Amino acid sequence: MEIEVLEGVFDANEMIAGENRAMLDEAGVFMVNLMASPGAGKTSVITRTLQGMAGSLACAVVEGDVAGKVDAERIAKLGIPAIQINTGGSCHLEARQVNGALARLDLASLDLVIIENVGNLVCPAEFKLGEDLKVMILSVAEGDDKPLKYPLMFSESDVLIVNKIDLTPYTDFDMKALKGTVFKMNPGAVTFELSCRTGEGVDKWNEWLKKRAARD
Amino acid sequence: MEIEVLEGVFDANEMIAGENRAMLDEAGVFMVNLMASPGAGKTSVITRTLQGMAGSLACAVVEGDVAGKVDAERIAKLGIPAIQINTGGSCHLEARQVNGALARLDLASLDLVIIENVGNLVCPAEFKLGEDLKVMILSVAEGDDKPLKYPLMFSESDVLIVNKIDLTPYTDFDMKALKGTVFKMNPGAVTFELSCRTGEGVDKWNEWLKKRAARD
Repeated sequence: MEIEVLEGVFDANEMIAGENRAMLDEAGVFMVNLMASPGAGKTSVITRTLQGMAGSLACAVVEGDVAGKVDAERIAKLGIPAIQINTGGSCHLEARQVNGALARLDLASLDLVIIENVGNLVCPAEFKLGEDLKVMILSVAEGDDKPLKYPLMFSESDVLIVNKIDLTPYTDFDMKALKGTVFKMNPGAVTFELSCRTGEGVDKWNEWLKKRAARD
Repeated sequence: MEIEVLEGVFDANEMIAGENRAMLDEAGVFMVNLMASPGAGKTSVITRTLQGMAGSLACAVVEGDVAGKVDAERIAKLGIPAIQINTGGSCHLEARQVNGALARLDLASLDLVIIENVGNLVCPAEFKLGEDLKVMILSVAEGDDKPLKYPLMFSESDVLIVNKIDLTPYTDFDMKALKGTVFKMNPGAVTFELSCRTGEGVDKWNEWLKKRAARD
């Protein structure tokens, strides 16, 4: 019984994700679904990415949080269109919420939409939003054993950004061990190592994303 | 319709949480529900706590993860009874899963059971397990703005442990700002600042928990 209800939820979600996809395709917009634990640095990666895209791609950001609007305010300060979705208790974004946000953006004037999902390594991986790319961030402070505990997120993501590499000397984080585990479950994963704090490695990610987004 | 289904889930959960409570009361066992983001240091806090309780309280640990058993293995290595619950995709523990784990422990020989919930700052806050104490961990690396984004977790928790304080000099973390926000939403919260890595502040938490657990 319970499983049937869940399947219904996923089916309905996938249908709306398809509608989002069609809207984006028509407008020629590339969409990134950015997922991570709370505090892994999603908003900081977005800020660094927006700086990198400045002058080449027109961007907008959709912020998903259980509550609050601090993230959307941070983005809006940069002069970038930002829409805040409050899930009101739900631990992930669903396609219908993104649909509502896309409808409020002037898609024709945009090249790239970045969705910041709710901070959570579990459920966001299960809900398609109509994105071109699933990107996850792992912070060095979280430890290199996370893929074993949250396998779906690591195997579903097209890109793994390892953030806060400036903290590496003060932790037991083992990059080699992490990558070994990740590539076993997701051989096609593209990885980037960076620090939003120092800026190290940010350019490489931005150049890659720029090329991917320009494909559309 | 959806809300009714959810209420049904919560009601059923609360009933079983009550059963857990009764089992624990009968055996004179104190139970802690430990919640945090992935990588905030739940297993490290448990390890440090077990060391602190050695010789005074008989402990067991119930590990909740979406997948894997690395945490239970870490605990069992210390000679402590450990039971691993794999939620198989679900982002939180429910009372029925804890019920099954408690049934497999020799409660009569125990004083303290620590439950390590699934790494998630959203849903675990909504499901009672029959615990005496809800304890959450926030790592310094996650940032001081998390209460605004995950208000339920911060307002539901009896205790907030701020872990990884050794990383403070390398981050923008503002302890005063964090506590200001937390005490506004949860004036009765008890807070501890510690580092499982260096051991700083661990004793204070352990002494406090020992006193609370001995109450039973």
